[in-house]
Amino acid sequence: MIKIALDAMGGEGSPDKVIDGVILHHKNNKDSFYKLFGNKNQISNLIKDKINEKFYEIIDTNDRVKDSDTPLQAAKRKTTSMWQAIQSVKEKKSDIVISAGNTGALFVIAKLNLEMIKDISKPALSALWPNKKGMSVVLDLGANIECNEKNLIDFSVMGSSLLKSLFPYETPKVALLNIGSEDYKGNDTIKKTFQYLNEKKNDGFEFKGYIEGNNLMNGDVNVIVTDGFTGNVALKTAEGTANFITSELKKSFNDSFLGKLSALINIKNLKSFKEKLDPRLYNGAILLGLNSPVIKSHGSIDYIGFSYSLDVCYKIVKGNLIEKIKKNII
Amino acid sequence: MIKIALDAMGGEGSPDKVIDGVILHHKNNKDSFYKLFGNKNQISNLIKDKINEKFYEIIDTNDRVKDSDTPLQAAKRKTTSMWQAIQSVKEKKSDIVISAGNTGALFVIAKLNLEMIKDISKPALSALWPNKKGMSVVLDLGANIECNEKNLIDFSVMGSSLLKSLFPYETPKVALLNIGSEDYKGNDTIKKTFQYLNEKKNDGFEFKGYIEGNNLMNGDVNVIVTDGFTGNVALKTAEGTANFITSELKKSFNDSFLGKLSALINIKNLKSFKEKLDPRLYNGAILLGLNSPVIKSHGSIDYIGFSYSLDVCYKIVKGNLIEKIKKNII
Repeated sequence: MIKIALDAMGGEGSPDKVIDGVILHHKNNKDSFYKLFGNKNQISNLIKDKINEKFYEIIDTNDRVKDSDTPLQAAKRKTTSMWQAIQSVKEKKSDIVISAGNTGALFVIAKLNLEMIKDISKPALSALWPNKKGMSVVLDLGANIECNEKNLIDFSVMGSSLLKSLFPYETPKVALLNIGSEDYKGNDTIKKTFQYLNEKKNDGFEFKGYIEGNNLMNGDVNVIVTDGFTGNVALKTAEGTANFITSELKKSFNDSFLGKLSALINIKNLKSFKEKLDPRLYNGAILLGLNSPVIKSHGSIDYIGFSYSLDVCYKIVKGNLIEKIKKNII
Repeated sequence: MIKIALDAMGGEGSPDKVIDGVILHHKNNKDSFYKLFGNKNQISNLIKDKINEKFYEIIDTNDRVKDSDTPLQAAKRKTTSMWQAIQSVKEKKSDIVISAGNTGALFVIAKLNLEMIKDISKPALSALWPNKKGMSVVLDLGANIECNEKNLIDFSVMGSSLLKSLFPYETPKVALLNIGSEDYKGNDTIKKTFQYLNEKKNDGFEFKGYIEGNNLMNGDVNVIVTDGFTGNVALKTAEGTANFITSELKKSFNDSFLGKLSALINIKNLKSFKEKLDPRLYNGAILLGLNSPVIKSHGSIDYIGFSYSLDVCYKIVKGNLIEKIKKNII
């Protein structure tokens, strides 16, 4: 059974949404054990009678990391549900840890407590993106503003391993995010990384060269590697563009009676469209490079989104992510 | 009358699309004179009887820059329509130059021939983006992979001046593209630029601090400043996301009979939606920093898109863009 350590007090609407997420996840997955860190009374009231006790354990904590805490403030308090949940993976009592709480605090506390994987020098923040053929892993999304070629090579290995853990039947195809597809484009770091990955044979992935922003969602590659600054801007720009387009679309539907009518007829179709783009599916981020994976679920996501994140936790452990990374380091 | 120098041979489907664009532009604008550089026979056949001769002049050139030319190959041939068109602004015979041809060649030939504006050290590539309230100017989009704070400050001035030339009733509101809105986020260059713009009073624009990718299209700011690498990735990612969403949307419409029916009813609404997002409206890029503005229309855009670019040319000259930049340099 997979043991998941949960910071039950992190994010908007917690612990309710965390526990509702657990209950939903448990419906379809009887192979996970939930270690719930937080206010025992509150959690107990929410979960008892919903899930058999053999599937969970509540560890009472009387402090929580607030969204307003700076990472340093948070890292000083070892009594929080977040700290305790991370301790649980550190002590090998759990296989993976998840929180929907304060992102900065989560990563600082994780880095303080968990060791890096040998030969990986910087952890990276990764996430899933939809593409025309399925799903891509993108990293780094903001953990490292500046990266050298060693970092980008590590990211290729870690991203491929993550993809393979989540989608065992896919072949990881790595590309470097750049401003052109020609050899001479880009800065020195990117060019050196390209050269290295192009020459070095490896078992973990196929190297596909450069990719430009407009092709990110084509699905021709499924692991996209970049520094944290560029990755963060790209991810958020995609999010902003999607919001802009769907809001303009809504406006055009509401502009006339016929528009409203056809929107009604079309509600089922739009539903399938929206489901494909449902941000809950791609919710959250995965911190890679530490000896245990750390999952950050989005603070404002609902319990359904949180239960998707639990599914990601489950797949990462079942897929032996950390072992895959260690095996593939180049 | 505004004198526009046109490389009539650049881009797919030229000279036909260039001349059709001129004819369309002339329908609504009788205050422009078109200096057409290219194959005289071809151009003459296309334009005669369509526009009165007092509105145009054909300058016969027997060479053209090919898309396959490297910038250096192109820059060695002074007989091309592109080179000659740029010469025309250099010699003050035209007010502005436009080409839909080879981008790299255009910028190298422009930089070889035209002087930089005093106190501007690097030219920047800018473009228009739609936002919820209107239009933004974004720069740099790829002319400079690495930028220092002086460059970013110059970009703020040039971008604001461009916005003011195109939309005289708007107040330029500048923001720096960053990975967070807090003071401590970002690299040294961005932080120093922030500090400088925040302290220094100037008449040309309001400084609004940092902006993240997800807010680019909110319309709260209308001049977005970034280095060429990040800007290029952001622009192309937005383009790719828009393509992804509209293709998924189309799929969901085509998936069922009801979907097709409602799409038919909805065609008018979707039309207004598509018009708002029509890439022809935001087509092309503007090279800023040289003593004469240089306009690049997209190679694959049609004659309608090209005529929009001619409108941008007209507004830039009427709005005294270069004078505005010189006046606002800080």
